[in-house]
Amino acid sequence: MKIKKTAKKNLGAMVMAGAIMFSATVAGAGTPKYVFFFLGDGMSNSQIQATEAYMTQANGGSAHEAADLLRPENRLNMSKMPVIGMQTTYDVHSLMPDSASSATAFACGLKTQSGTVGMDDSKTVSYKSIAQLAHEAGKKVGVISSVSLDHATPAAYYASVPSRGNYGDIDTQLVGSGYEFFGGGGLKVMDPDELDDYGYELLNDRESIMGLKDAPRDKVVCINPWLQNSQAMPYAIDRPETNVSLAEMTEVAIANLKGDQGFFIMVEGGKIDWACHANDAGATIGDMQAFDNAVGVALDFYKQHPFNTLIVVTGDHETGGMSIGHATTAYSAHYERLLGQTSSFTYFDANQWAEHKAAYAATTDCSTPDTLAGNADMLGLMESVFDLNWTDLNEYQKEKLEDAYDKSLCGNNDNSNAENGLLYGNYNPITVTITHILNEQASIGWTSYSHTGVPVPVFAQGVYKRLFAGFYDNTDIAKKMARAMSLGTVPAMK
Amino acid sequence: MKIKKTAKKNLGAMVMAGAIMFSATVAGAGTPKYVFFFLGDGMSNSQIQATEAYMTQANGGSAHEAADLLRPENRLNMSKMPVIGMQTTYDVHSLMPDSASSATAFACGLKTQSGTVGMDDSKTVSYKSIAQLAHEAGKKVGVISSVSLDHATPAAYYASVPSRGNYGDIDTQLVGSGYEFFGGGGLKVMDPDELDDYGYELLNDRESIMGLKDAPRDKVVCINPWLQNSQAMPYAIDRPETNVSLAEMTEVAIANLKGDQGFFIMVEGGKIDWACHANDAGATIGDMQAFDNAVGVALDFYKQHPFNTLIVVTGDHETGGMSIGHATTAYSAHYERLLGQTSSFTYFDANQWAEHKAAYAATTDCSTPDTLAGNADMLGLMESVFDLNWTDLNEYQKEKLEDAYDKSLCGNNDNSNAENGLLYGNYNPITVTITHILNEQASIGWTSYSHTGVPVPVFAQGVYKRLFAGFYDNTDIAKKMARAMSLGTVPAMK
Repeated sequence: MKIKKTAKKNLGAMVMAGAIMFSATVAGAGTPKYVFFFLGDGMSNSQIQATEAYMTQANGGSAHEAADLLRPENRLNMSKMPVIGMQTTYDVHSLMPDSASSATAFACGLKTQSGTVGMDDSKTVSYKSIAQLAHEAGKKVGVISSVSLDHATPAAYYASVPSRGNYGDIDTQLVGSGYEFFGGGGLKVMDPDELDDYGYELLNDRESIMGLKDAPRDKVVCINPWLQNSQAMPYAIDRPETNVSLAEMTEVAIANLKGDQGFFIMVEGGKIDWACHANDAGATIGDMQAFDNAVGVALDFYKQHPFNTLIVVTGDHETGGMSIGHATTAYSAHYERLLGQTSSFTYFDANQWAEHKAAYAATTDCSTPDTLAGNADMLGLMESVFDLNWTDLNEYQKEKLEDAYDKSLCGNNDNSNAENGLLYGNYNPITVTITHILNEQASIGWTSYSHTGVPVPVFAQGVYKRLFAGFYDNTDIAKKMARAMSLGTVPAMK
Repeated sequence: MKIKKTAKKNLGAMVMAGAIMFSATVAGAGTPKYVFFFLGDGMSNSQIQATEAYMTQANGGSAHEAADLLRPENRLNMSKMPVIGMQTTYDVHSLMPDSASSATAFACGLKTQSGTVGMDDSKTVSYKSIAQLAHEAGKKVGVISSVSLDHATPAAYYASVPSRGNYGDIDTQLVGSGYEFFGGGGLKVMDPDELDDYGYELLNDRESIMGLKDAPRDKVVCINPWLQNSQAMPYAIDRPETNVSLAEMTEVAIANLKGDQGFFIMVEGGKIDWACHANDAGATIGDMQAFDNAVGVALDFYKQHPFNTLIVVTGDHETGGMSIGHATTAYSAHYERLLGQTSSFTYFDANQWAEHKAAYAATTDCSTPDTLAGNADMLGLMESVFDLNWTDLNEYQKEKLEDAYDKSLCGNNDNSNAENGLLYGNYNPITVTITHILNEQASIGWTSYSHTGVPVPVFAQGVYKRLFAGFYDNTDIAKKMARAMSLGTVPAMK
């Protein structure tokens, strides 16, 4: 691509200062052969603590007894990594970045605007990712995500597009990347059957994909058979036994990419973010555990190759303004309340709710004040799917559920638009109200349906882990990764 | 104190494992002569990011432009420290600790229950703080707090009491500590004029206290002249020019304690927590800046004594479930909305609101639906104190303010008790509703009026800073501090 001189100048003093700071490459000796970058989309401190409190409860302990919370089996793998950093997540124009700009920060070391992937704020200059630089330097590359493989976060490692929505261009750059391994969700535009036109073998059932552990291939795309919506893998809480989990996909990728050349593997837990957007703690925690299990696979690999491996784990931004505390529960925590949830909001909306609405929308009398209280089927669903028992609720919670049920089943309620916007965002009113109340009972609060601007922790293990100590900007992560891998200066123009 | 053997046994495997891990003392060579521990009560990532976004705006930048947010003058001093850690904050029985148990964790390396200071969960065994151990080892000790000097956090460094409310016992142990310097707020029970009976000189005006920089004394208690309530210093936003700020008090302490013996100084920003309990971001940010300015004084001292100084900064728990994002603002941030707030909720309640209520409570017709909209005096107060203009609000915000005004001025409103509990906690309804709406406009949300369980970052600079890397428990901080200062194994029984 031809570079415009004006755009070059517009990089800004900040980026240049960063580039100078990290321009010195590290001598080849000691450079890690195997490098993992784990990205929990929407993950920050609250998502981590909520998951550990849930795990404590699920393992038979109490989420308010320190002796239980501190037991090693109740801590996430990432929590046990020896080096911690913290990063500011804002992008060039927003304190709350999107996943495109933050992925560009991690992949290319470049600040850009929300929505843009692998290009600068002018949307005219394209940059190489550390994955591409590692590939050019001879490493094999794997890209794994629980959402579609052409979603913003994975895309930043192989594509440069002005808008994350340019899925056709992203898919074209995916097959043009030459990377050896892709795995997880599907593709938004390209028919996967076309992959072999570009030299990629497509595998899309559990048996074939797991078989790769014993019989690696040169260039492969592994797409799970059950894609829940938007070509993404289903939530872990929805028990996709026919699928390959993020942890298993990481094992498969390692088996395929391991060898003299070394590898760079990026693994995204992409639906942590989606669950947090919807303020669904149960789905969030399930996908946090699935993501952290994949981190565990890399840590096991590190133990076999301690002098050749670097593992970095972080989030791109927090989502939902999640907190480990709520006005209604004050100083008490009740994570056992979450153990009974059996479906994500997505699965519930698409299945149980859809069936319920089809059965009752035409016949329910929406003019009565106790529409929900009078519907045994719906009260039963609340109990069977979310373990939420009507008789345990206070009057205010019942009122909120009645309002939401009216809106979901009958199309409207008595609230102002401003109140409904605050209460439901763009989600199914009854479902988001159920998860709000259930989460509050556990002591989890939410403030937003969007990303937030809270700084995010970084965890590191292995060779050069100490580079990741301290409080820095998200763009510095790519610079540190490039330095650890001796890939030269980033941002690096294509 | 006589130690009960049963209590000894009850310490638990967890504490003992930690004690073993950190039992090896570090050789005297290289042990830092000067040690600072800074404790932002109620401070975690959100409080830090909100303050930096506010500072960016106050310094003429934009809180959503990365180039402005990243400018060094818009970053807190603590954010520039080279080593980051993260700590779990739970106490022995609660995911959301109080300041007594968390202060005991930092001071004594001991898990205890909420409410207890310097004693274990049985409330029968007393433990030495690292301040006491440092004092016994010959270091001078200073204890500084913006709240009363016998409040839970400072008390943990010199007192052991079953309940944080035992102020009489705490005050007795304060004067019995022999520590060389106390400064900040006042005392809850003891008449400060009695201090000289115990060998302490009392200074309680700005000129005398600042004079200590040039003429140090042996044992001194510095109590600021303006104490706002509960013997605490006023909020920084309330402009206490007659007082000595936390930063100035830190300078005075250094001047008094510096010398061959070395020192340990604990500085608490105690009202960050109080402001977060009340969900008042403006007051929070003001006290965050005052606290961080004190950190800056220590960092300046470090630059003069880089091989002899250790500085550790952390929070004891998050308060309020503060987030950098809200459903009503989504991906936009407007921290300029906070620049116009001129008083804390406390100052407003005690002054402007008290006067307003006295003038209008008897004559206002509380039965009309637009009580507030019809009161020009109150609308004027909202604008002059909080920069909140009635005509800029949406219908839902106006409804919330009308409900709160009815409750504050007239004693009741139409809401259920459950709704009022959620909306106001135990705060003045009109004031907390004003700060909620103002904060939401800036993009700050809150979920609780209590402490929360989110992990908290730790920042370190100086000798042994690397001890503070990684993700560990709050009790490990005392163990690391003791190790850095060669104070032996903690927890150490009295």
